[in-house]
Formats: sequence, C-alpha cells, structure tokens
Amino acid sequence: MTVQILPILGLPEIEPGDDLAALLIDAIRPLDPGAGDIVVVTQKVVSKAENALESTTSDADYRKIVERESASVLRRRGELVISVTRHGFVCANAGVDRSNVVEGQVALLPTDPDRSAQRLRIRFQRAFDLDLPVIITDTFGRAWRNGLVDVAIGVAGMEPILDLRGTPDDQGRLLEVTEVAVADEVAAAAELVMGKANGVPAVLVRGVQYRPGEGRASDMVRAPGQDMFR
Amino acid sequence: MTVQILPILGLPEIEPGDDLAALLIDAIRPLDPGAGDIVVVTQKVVSKAENALESTTSDADYRKIVERESASVLRRRGELVISVTRHGFVCANAGVDRSNVVEGQVALLPTDPDRSAQRLRIRFQRAFDLDLPVIITDTFGRAWRNGLVDVAIGVAGMEPILDLRGTPDDQGRLLEVTEVAVADEVAAAAELVMGKANGVPAVLVRGVQYRPGEGRASDMVRAPGQDMFR
Repeated sequence: MTVQILPILGLPEIEPGDDLAALLIDAIRPLDPGAGDIVVVTQKVVSKAENALESTTSDADYRKIVERESASVLRRRGELVISVTRHGFVCANAGVDRSNVVEGQVALLPTDPDRSAQRLRIRFQRAFDLDLPVIITDTFGRAWRNGLVDVAIGVAGMEPILDLRGTPDDQGRLLEVTEVAVADEVAAAAELVMGKANGVPAVLVRGVQYRPGEGRASDMVRAPGQDMFR
Repeated sequence: MTVQILPILGLPEIEPGDDLAALLIDAIRPLDPGAGDIVVVTQKVVSKAENALESTTSDADYRKIVERESASVLRRRGELVISVTRHGFVCANAGVDRSNVVEGQVALLPTDPDRSAQRLRIRFQRAFDLDLPVIITDTFGRAWRNGLVDVAIGVAGMEPILDLRGTPDDQGRLLEVTEVAVADEVAAAAELVMGKANGVPAVLVRGVQYRPGEGRASDMVRAPGQDMFR
C-alpha cells in the first residue's frame, strides 16, 4: 500500500520540436515501469516540445500575451490577473510563465493538454506494452489558502476523480466525502520530487489506487453554473 | 530524491480519551523512522481522541451544529454551507463530518489543530529522539475544480510554505513561482495511501525536502483582506 514517487532522471533540456515521448521513454526505462504506474510530466516541458513559446521584449508585451490567453478575467489586482483559460482553468496570468524558459521567452499552456497526455500514453503503450496513465501538471494558486500547489491540467488513461459514493466507511456507513480528485493529489505529490529548481520535469508514481479509464483533466473543471466562486 | 508514503498500520479504532501519541508511536516504530520523515495524521482520529464529537439525532440537529461551528458563512446552496471556521479555514459544513464515526455522532474539527500537531511532535521527539514534523489533514473542496483533496489543517516542526523567492531556476533566472504549499502537497500525497475507506488514518512520508521550523497551518490561511474570492 506504499506509494513511491520516483524521479525520471537524465532528460536533456527540452527544445521545440523534440520528440518528448522518445526522450521520456529512454529516461523511464531504467525505472522498470510496471502496471499501475503513473507518468507525471510538468507542463513546461510539454509546452517547450510543442513550441508553445513566445518572445517577449517587455512587461507590457507579457501582459498583452496574458490578456490574449485569457478567455475571461475573474479578478484583477495590480498586475495580477486571475484568468479563466480557454481550457476552463482558473489560474494566475492565464498560465503564461516566465520561469524556466530562456530570457525573452514565455511558455504558454499547451493547446490541449489532455490530448498531449493521450499522445504520450499511446507512445508509452507501444514502448512498454503497458497502459501507463499520464498526468500533465501545472502550478496554480488557490482561493483562501496561501501558497501554490501542482494540479493536473492534462490526463489520459485514468479517471481523474475517484467517485466513492456508495462505498462503506470504517463503520459500514456510506461515505459522504465521495469525489476524491486523485489526479490532483498525484500532481501535488509529484511536485514534492520535481520541485521548482530541481531540473526534474517528470516522475513515475507507483502504488496509487486509481481507476483506469478515459477521463480528462477538463472533467475536473467545475461547470461555471455549479461554481459559487466566480 | 525518491519520496515514499508509508502506511502506519495496526492502529486500533480510536476512542475519546485514547492516548493517540502512544498508539502512533507503537505503530510508527516498525517503520524505523529517521531524520526528515514527516508524520501525517487525519483529523478524524485526532478529533476522536480529543473527544471533539457530538451526538446528533437528525439532519436538523446536524445543520444546527454546522451553523454553530461556522464563524461565518461564505455561501449557501441548498443544504450545502461553505463556512469559514473559527480557525479561518474555508470548507464545506464547517468541517463537521458524519463519515467514519459511529451512527448518531459527528466529528468536529479539533479546537486547535496546530497545537494538536505540536503535542504529537513533542511526544515523537521523546520516543524517537527525532524532530519529526507532524501534519494533521482534512479533506476539503476547492473553488473552480471538482473533487476533494486533503490539505493541512495542523502543522508542527516545519514551514508549511517553502518560499523560493530568490532561488535561481534552470536557466539561472530568479523563480517567479515562489511560495510552494509543501504541507498541502504532503497532505494530498498522504491521502493517496490513507484513502477514505482504507482504515489507514496515518502515514509516514519519507524523502520530502522541507524547511524545519515553527510554522503553523494557520499561516496557510490567506488573510481575508488579501483574498479576492470571499
């Protein structure tokens, strides 16, 4: 019942056009992946490989890109923009990021992170003859709590939310806390190894009880009509 | 750099007045705890040991307790109440929980979960001659995203937020994403092993890079004046 979070080491600096799947396969192989393992990759390397990069020459430029990448804006405070992205994610500055990219560049979110995850999953299946779920993560702020945590912005091969409705608890009563955001918990766990300055953009997570399936990270976006905090 | 989440097995059903620290010490010992390990305990067993339980005979009764335990109410929808607790946490139904307790009872949040964590830390220090940080977790919903994740409601022995401001990234530029909510990421990781129906109310987390210190979970509550989503 132990869960392990293993760094996927030895990846080169990812450049636009790189075959990220091939590089990941080489780096995962020494970890001897097995059934039930989950591959977690940070958005940054996916965005780089997919060339979701843009040049910026100034802060004004950066802010223009943030506005363009925001489907709508929930809140503004000073230069901080809380955006809704085209994917439906609520995050600061539409997820446009200046860290861990070359000076004068910013990384945008992948166009369709669920599809990016699905592409990696298919390649892993071919390479390892295993259906390894893939989670693509990004670092988001939250309402009400200080500090940032990694969440799942792309998912393939698993249900991101584990619905326990109807499961008995320790006392044999039906559970009320029912919908566990497993993919987000795996993303948060992965960040503990990937860090922000460690140069480890991917990990293998072993031992998690998840439900295989065709879920997507977009399933995790609360429908605006159901959302009390917009 | 691998992180491991090890179940703490063999704990009995916790009853009011139980010496939770002593029971945990016995159950942790076989895992051979070492420097850097973090002990994570779910709120439910802390509340039970501290007798933060109350009898309810009806749904109306339950709702009265929720109102009483709410310092204020942020939102209501049908029977769902999004409360601010006396601790400052924003969560559903003031954290008052009917799962995994005896029929006719509810579990309240511990009065001061940071203090509960600190008391456990002191006992672990005596037993193991090690300063093991302690995190007490509960399962909270979030704005904007479906599904629940575990977060830290009590912390002792570590800084819950790792401030990386001034740390260089891979490219030698200063990081912009700076305040990582490590204690919440550990809580989320722990839930992957504790589950909701597993009967594992505590885990040992090994290999996390954290900053030892006298931080508190209450440091993680965003000051209402800084909070754009109240």
